[in-house]
Amino acid sequence: MSFKFPSLWIAVAAIAGAGVALPAAAQFAKPEDAIKYRKAAFTVMATHFGRVAAMANGRIPFDAKAAADNAEIATIASKLPYAGFVEGTDKGETKAKPEIWKEKARFDETARKLQDDVAKLNAAAKTGNVDQIKAAVGAVGQTCKSCHDTFRKE
Amino acid sequence: MSFKFPSLWIAVAAIAGAGVALPAAAQFAKPEDAIKYRKAAFTVMATHFGRVAAMANGRIPFDAKAAADNAEIATIASKLPYAGFVEGTDKGETKAKPEIWKEKARFDETARKLQDDVAKLNAAAKTGNVDQIKAAVGAVGQTCKSCHDTFRKE
Repeated sequence: MSFKFPSLWIAVAAIAGAGVALPAAAQFAKPEDAIKYRKAAFTVMATHFGRVAAMANGRIPFDAKAAADNAEIATIASKLPYAGFVEGTDKGETKAKPEIWKEKARFDETARKLQDDVAKLNAAAKTGNVDQIKAAVGAVGQTCKSCHDTFRKE
Repeated sequence: MSFKFPSLWIAVAAIAGAGVALPAAAQFAKPEDAIKYRKAAFTVMATHFGRVAAMANGRIPFDAKAAADNAEIATIASKLPYAGFVEGTDKGETKAKPEIWKEKARFDETARKLQDDVAKLNAAAKTGNVDQIKAAVGAVGQTCKSCHDTFRKE
């Protein structure tokens, strides 16, 4: 069986511009719901990003269409998890460090950088140019690592 | 902090039509990756669907724009999890019953029905009509339950 994925490039183009600001707080009934949600959104993002990275690095065969589709889904998913970093969710089943809330401006900046970098990867994936995709994958990977080093427990 | 969600209705409109068929198999390096991914995609879908349902049922105040935005994300997320039901992933950290693979055609049909029902909810959410949204939420809920009753362990 195969399922069809949408062609989302129009929507992804819109992400950079207008959008709806949803408040991060008051979206989850319980702290553990917020934690579960953000982990899930990161998993979806990482899965689709990981496929593009694997193609860029030659671990799986390059397929321009699949790279573009996966980059699109990663871009949409990159918008989601940060709403889950509600105050008081540094406890429980999470690797989130208290620094996320203590250094909120810095964390938010890292989040925005990640979203920008994934959007750039998406643009690169549209070109089908493996060198461009590889460079963009590298930038995303660095931003992931930088945030994990600072804000995520081992 | 608030993050901006994309306005995705153009993309969602495209879901029903043309799309890219990605094969369900051979997308995941390990069975546990497929299981983690499909659970994550269901969590994202359920979170956004749950907000629309809560508004439709009066548990939280109705906000037409928020209902539409959440229905859109739920619609996109509804396309994702089924790729994770790879052969051999009925073991491990999963509630998936072997019937999913034994009665594959029936499972696929349920999956498609869910995707259709969520797409209809999305269309209803665009109207801003609470009665329409409520009816569509009910249909999605029934499809969720029907699939869980048949294909998911307690």
